[in-house]
Amino acid sequence: MLQQKGQKMEKLSFERAKIKDKADSLGPKRHEFLIPENIIYLDGNSLGPLTKDASKRVKEATEEEWGIGLIRSWNDSGWGNLPKKVGAKIAPLLGVRSVNVIMSDSTSINLFKVLSVACSMNSGRKTIITETKNFPTDNYIIEGVTRQLNNNFKITYVDQPEDIIASIDETVAVVVLTHINYKNGAMLDISEITRATHKAGALVIWDLAHSAGAVPLELSRWDVDFAVGCSYKYLNGGPGAPGYLYVADRHIGKFNQPLTGWFAHKSPFKFEPQYEPAEDIGQYLCGTPPVLSSIALNAALDVWTDVDLQDVREKSLELTDYFIELVEERCSDPDLQLITPRDHKFRGSQVSFTYPKGGYAIMSALIEEGVIGDFRAPNILRFGFTPLYTSFKDVWLAVDKLKKILETKSWDQSKYHDRKVVT
Amino acid sequence: MLQQKGQKMEKLSFERAKIKDKADSLGPKRHEFLIPENIIYLDGNSLGPLTKDASKRVKEATEEEWGIGLIRSWNDSGWGNLPKKVGAKIAPLLGVRSVNVIMSDSTSINLFKVLSVACSMNSGRKTIITETKNFPTDNYIIEGVTRQLNNNFKITYVDQPEDIIASIDETVAVVVLTHINYKNGAMLDISEITRATHKAGALVIWDLAHSAGAVPLELSRWDVDFAVGCSYKYLNGGPGAPGYLYVADRHIGKFNQPLTGWFAHKSPFKFEPQYEPAEDIGQYLCGTPPVLSSIALNAALDVWTDVDLQDVREKSLELTDYFIELVEERCSDPDLQLITPRDHKFRGSQVSFTYPKGGYAIMSALIEEGVIGDFRAPNILRFGFTPLYTSFKDVWLAVDKLKKILETKSWDQSKYHDRKVVT
Repeated sequence: MLQQKGQKMEKLSFERAKIKDKADSLGPKRHEFLIPENIIYLDGNSLGPLTKDASKRVKEATEEEWGIGLIRSWNDSGWGNLPKKVGAKIAPLLGVRSVNVIMSDSTSINLFKVLSVACSMNSGRKTIITETKNFPTDNYIIEGVTRQLNNNFKITYVDQPEDIIASIDETVAVVVLTHINYKNGAMLDISEITRATHKAGALVIWDLAHSAGAVPLELSRWDVDFAVGCSYKYLNGGPGAPGYLYVADRHIGKFNQPLTGWFAHKSPFKFEPQYEPAEDIGQYLCGTPPVLSSIALNAALDVWTDVDLQDVREKSLELTDYFIELVEERCSDPDLQLITPRDHKFRGSQVSFTYPKGGYAIMSALIEEGVIGDFRAPNILRFGFTPLYTSFKDVWLAVDKLKKILETKSWDQSKYHDRKVVT
Repeated sequence: MLQQKGQKMEKLSFERAKIKDKADSLGPKRHEFLIPENIIYLDGNSLGPLTKDASKRVKEATEEEWGIGLIRSWNDSGWGNLPKKVGAKIAPLLGVRSVNVIMSDSTSINLFKVLSVACSMNSGRKTIITETKNFPTDNYIIEGVTRQLNNNFKITYVDQPEDIIASIDETVAVVVLTHINYKNGAMLDISEITRATHKAGALVIWDLAHSAGAVPLELSRWDVDFAVGCSYKYLNGGPGAPGYLYVADRHIGKFNQPLTGWFAHKSPFKFEPQYEPAEDIGQYLCGTPPVLSSIALNAALDVWTDVDLQDVREKSLELTDYFIELVEERCSDPDLQLITPRDHKFRGSQVSFTYPKGGYAIMSALIEEGVIGDFRAPNILRFGFTPLYTSFKDVWLAVDKLKKILETKSWDQSKYHDRKVVT
């Protein structure tokens, strides 16, 4: 229409954002979410928003299932099936079969489980490889596991992603990596690193916290051994929603994880005095799962039913490319430096810029203006792009706010103090 | 009034139950709970009912804090403080200071943590004592910890509670016991066993799943080393609500638990590459807590604010005595055998009977009649008494239903099949 009028489309105009939204096949998905008005939410990589279904189901589960059904709801409402049911919904997002995934505990605890198993499987080898820049809890858990194993294992921290493959030799037992870096959004090649790991006779564990729901995954085809992940980011499971884990067929039922709680027993409700591990993925459970939090996650996962992850990836790259383009063209502040890979093949679904002179203050000013991203020390502005509910218009308006804040220097260093944020 | 009329009070009459209720100072507490009409709930030792506050808070936390506040609620709604805040509310129920208790993960995982610490503290000794009849998950976790420690530890299972103290000698590293047995409601003497354990130079871990909120506890005065517990029974935290743990001052900050997730770090939000444990009880956290489930628990704990646990204990014993008396007087079925200690000093807040010829079918028939207790294999009918919302009238009516079912033999063995229930 605009072209019919003979107007020249301005590449960076707000009009263009609106046209992109009209052509967006994922656009209608936004109606399944309860995004507050006047908020542009670019932090779904930290805490995904509430879906309409999740809101309704938490209320029902609280008032009806717990309130009225009481203990009967363990059977009547299938609370006991939630770990496998949720696992089965996450499985297609990982490119694996449902019997290989289970919802359980937290990402940290799940990493403890699978790393303990991996270490026990490879008794001749004593090196664990990880990245110095891995998400801290992963590295803390690696330390915890090695301490628990009397420090028989040595941890090698690789500083640069490009050095990972060269560091994997025949002394390595396990490689533990996060697919997409939480700070800069850089993405590793799971397929290539897994192949190199196996070639060296080692096992690999992938943390998919910033991957599942953000990029297509094919763990099965890539022959991954173990994976863990977080459900409160791109999977929108709610604050502190339970984690999940994946175990390849060849490892299920052969080695037992050490957190041998009753939910991991073959017959938990027979109350047998000795532990007999479940022979399926259920062996990776431990205690009673937090039902209300699990129900929110279970409901939130239904938004994925009719979504093609290739469409998500395509839109994600358009959104992040567009954001970078707009920031670099419209915000002419030389202190703002892109730290996310410019080549989008190597990028997850977030974009980070450093701003050494006041990154925290700028992010706080943005949040006050209704654009919610987040800040990572020491100077990183981090923006998450979530194709199911982020529009091109959101991106345009967010950059417009950023531009104004930078131009008018309308942030006050002294006004803001460091505060807690959760990745 | 009845006496004025010259009527002789019938000891087992319904009238007497109503009079007892009138005299019950805890009676009004029931209005803080949402007990469904026509239900007599004698399963609060398995899953406590919903409180009005918890219902309201879960809705607010979902719709407002998550839905509208989004990531900001980690700070603005204090989600990050929940583990310590909830711990501080549980502390008075354990008779300890708030800085020694934290909400975290599940009972099973918490036992793994404290047992791992206790084993590492006592390196010269290699025996762990527990009861054969301990709740299974505790014994499974003990097995899991010893396996993780390369089976350097030997587990001694004590068959009879009266043999526990005699089994604690100078080879013992740790004694792990549950205070109140989940099957028969028998209560051990924490003070006496703790003293004997310390005398032998060992450490003690108490599981308080069926104790906190049911009986007064004085862990601090009793000099207990560690304790773990469950919040979804007498604490009414909701299905699968997070567990809690207690660590004595003398052990805090000295030995680190192995599940070293980021929430256990000194400065989790500084994202430091190396693990540095928190120096306080926070070191016993691991990953991100399930917020919705934690909020339900946090709200549910407020019912205890104005409650004196001595009143709870007094009413609990009256309720259980009354129940036993009514069952034994009114239900004249010789197959029904009390397995809970008759001397109420040794009893928690539940009563169990065995019924070999069809216990499961009888419990199912009772549940269909609106009296919810539960069944434990092979033949146990288990009834929990929760003074904050159980009335004497409830007890009378429950026994009346049981009497009728037994008299009319109105249960059908073939109709019921074994089904899952959660302790």
